[in-house]
Amino acid sequence: MQPDTVLITGGGHTRFGAHSQRDQVTGDRSDSYPLEQMLADATEEALMEAGLEASAIDSVFVGSCSPGAFAQQELLGPLVLQQQPGLRFKAVHQSTAACASSSMALHAAADALQSGRIRTALVLGIEKMTLLSTPAVTEILGRCSYWPEESARDITFPGLFARLGDSYRQRHGISTERYREMLATVAAMNYRRGIHNPLAQFGPGSLPQTAGLLSAQAILDLPQEKNPVIAAPLHLHDCSPISDGAVALVLVRADSGLKDATSVALRGRAISTDYLPLSRRPALHKLEGAYDSASRAYRESGITQADLDLVEVHDCFTSNQLLCIEALGLSDEGCAGEDYLAGEYGEDARCQINLSGGLKSKGHPVGATGASMHYFAYRQLIGRPVGTAHPGNPELAAVLNIGGSGVVNCTTVLQAV
Amino acid sequence: MQPDTVLITGGGHTRFGAHSQRDQVTGDRSDSYPLEQMLADATEEALMEAGLEASAIDSVFVGSCSPGAFAQQELLGPLVLQQQPGLRFKAVHQSTAACASSSMALHAAADALQSGRIRTALVLGIEKMTLLSTPAVTEILGRCSYWPEESARDITFPGLFARLGDSYRQRHGISTERYREMLATVAAMNYRRGIHNPLAQFGPGSLPQTAGLLSAQAILDLPQEKNPVIAAPLHLHDCSPISDGAVALVLVRADSGLKDATSVALRGRAISTDYLPLSRRPALHKLEGAYDSASRAYRESGITQADLDLVEVHDCFTSNQLLCIEALGLSDEGCAGEDYLAGEYGEDARCQINLSGGLKSKGHPVGATGASMHYFAYRQLIGRPVGTAHPGNPELAAVLNIGGSGVVNCTTVLQAV
Repeated sequence: MQPDTVLITGGGHTRFGAHSQRDQVTGDRSDSYPLEQMLADATEEALMEAGLEASAIDSVFVGSCSPGAFAQQELLGPLVLQQQPGLRFKAVHQSTAACASSSMALHAAADALQSGRIRTALVLGIEKMTLLSTPAVTEILGRCSYWPEESARDITFPGLFARLGDSYRQRHGISTERYREMLATVAAMNYRRGIHNPLAQFGPGSLPQTAGLLSAQAILDLPQEKNPVIAAPLHLHDCSPISDGAVALVLVRADSGLKDATSVALRGRAISTDYLPLSRRPALHKLEGAYDSASRAYRESGITQADLDLVEVHDCFTSNQLLCIEALGLSDEGCAGEDYLAGEYGEDARCQINLSGGLKSKGHPVGATGASMHYFAYRQLIGRPVGTAHPGNPELAAVLNIGGSGVVNCTTVLQAV
Repeated sequence: MQPDTVLITGGGHTRFGAHSQRDQVTGDRSDSYPLEQMLADATEEALMEAGLEASAIDSVFVGSCSPGAFAQQELLGPLVLQQQPGLRFKAVHQSTAACASSSMALHAAADALQSGRIRTALVLGIEKMTLLSTPAVTEILGRCSYWPEESARDITFPGLFARLGDSYRQRHGISTERYREMLATVAAMNYRRGIHNPLAQFGPGSLPQTAGLLSAQAILDLPQEKNPVIAAPLHLHDCSPISDGAVALVLVRADSGLKDATSVALRGRAISTDYLPLSRRPALHKLEGAYDSASRAYRESGITQADLDLVEVHDCFTSNQLLCIEALGLSDEGCAGEDYLAGEYGEDARCQINLSGGLKSKGHPVGATGASMHYFAYRQLIGRPVGTAHPGNPELAAVLNIGGSGVVNCTTVLQAV
């Protein structure tokens, strides 16, 4: 291991969910899990697992999408000082990259660690979305698209991802019926994993379990009012929910002397950025930036997709899970849906996809999502899985987290130490 | 010079100003200088000065405060691709840290360069604020304070900085009259420099020149309606204006082979974070985080404040210019105002302060401000000053850029190569 290898040595993760309640009479919202408390809980848990005091952390890297608009609190890093005064006067960075915000924070932390200027870093991902109504959340998220052509014309994120999904379907000559089956298969698989994940919004005892939505057929059989079209071809059960949540990870350099028996190394990583407007992209049936970031991360790691034991991919919509699997090279172009229908990604597959339940089950507090994906991969690799466990002894994982409509594409390859 | 020394080799800077107009009848706003065009212009100028094609840039680092709220466009880095397709598939990071957003982007870029993972970086700072009314801008900026105790109680940023200023005044037993003289002296000095700066909002031929506000006495003599109290003890002419603007800097590693005759090295740098709520700070009469970041940046540089030829400091309010000068150690604690009144910082001073005219004259497009401070220091050090020139041959400069009410404190020491 190189001296500048970056290791994850601790993680903390709040339960994801809708932690605000709306009063049915007044419409007022109350908040049972404020931003500050979520940050404090995730931080404390991660520091404890890493066996470090806050004062041993050299710099903090926070990722969040739109905390000013969602929760009136734009600066988040400094909030952590209030419960961890040992962090006072440390450098705090804050990254924003839509739904890839905390992967970007993790990459920035890794850069700083590899520069040799710091030995330890705390990476935080957070979003508090449920204080607002769904239309307000949709409007705020829309600012992460290209305003003049997209959000200004009332094209929402479900609409943008629907367009990517439909381009894929048409390109590969998939019938609308068959495509719906593919997406329902993905949703059901993610629900089946999520119901074992106590940190998931759709965790044990939640709707997918109580309503029996654990097979594709059960989802396809739902009446229209229980699974309405959000943006054709995407239905409600193709969409990840609106959520609150926070995640913390402790990162250290390999030569810091702080590695322990349960560390995970970042073997390779890359961020690749694509055009913001869909209108500028040469191809809409695949995520070209995600392909690029995956191939660069593999190259740095010296691995191929065939070496992977598990991946966490960005299923903000079920359609995007198919695009991510192809970008990672796990399925050939145009084949991910068929591979799902053929059972290639079942319980005994070599490479397990979204054992956490994915964004579909976990929830999608956008700024926390990237750190969460890394957290669940890390827990599998150290042999302390949360929720559904990998059937073997996984050693290599990849995370593909995406911000915007395939705009900011972050791939990380993780390896058990 | 170490191989991993980070150099600035090119800069681009739009004119700062109010680039949107409001229709007097309909109230509608039009935008004569859209976000994308500002980014494109600054980028093109910086690349040209550095002698690089866009494709030679390894990563882009953008700083912006609240572009989603101000201009419906949260993701900014990818916007640059549209006019510079050579950047497609590069990593784009986006930092947010209130008024220190683009200094934070610069520090993140320097970390990445020093890690050895990249050789070249483009740093961008941008904000487009004048599409909105002043109350709306004030509300959005307020999200960078501590919501429960500050913005939720209608305490604005002028109010927070007024409180810091008044704590300083009281601590050092300065009369309100004398304090006003100190602040007016700072404002007039910044105006005298700014009117020579063609990129400044209050540049040549603007209000300070036409209204003759180039002496402290002229400002003090203004009738109340021309210089109303904004938040006592701060008057209108103590406040930096609301602005639009973008700045670009090209950074390279010393061992990249891309250094030219007009490069400036980052000799030392530090970010120091303080508690977000003023209520948590042990002292309000000084910027403890700024002191800390300055001392760490000096230590890395191996210099003291006595070595500095010029500084650009964060005069979002004139009161803060005094606090910054003390944090940098140029004046003793409690003495900056008296030093100003005694003419210590006049045209022939050893260390020149805010030759650019400061935020007071330049304008304060919050996300662009940090990069702008570095741009003006860089131009002085390469002997191609914009606006008022240093009277000697300056070699060493410091930049102190602050986000929030003294929360995110970024100091950089720059040296001519």
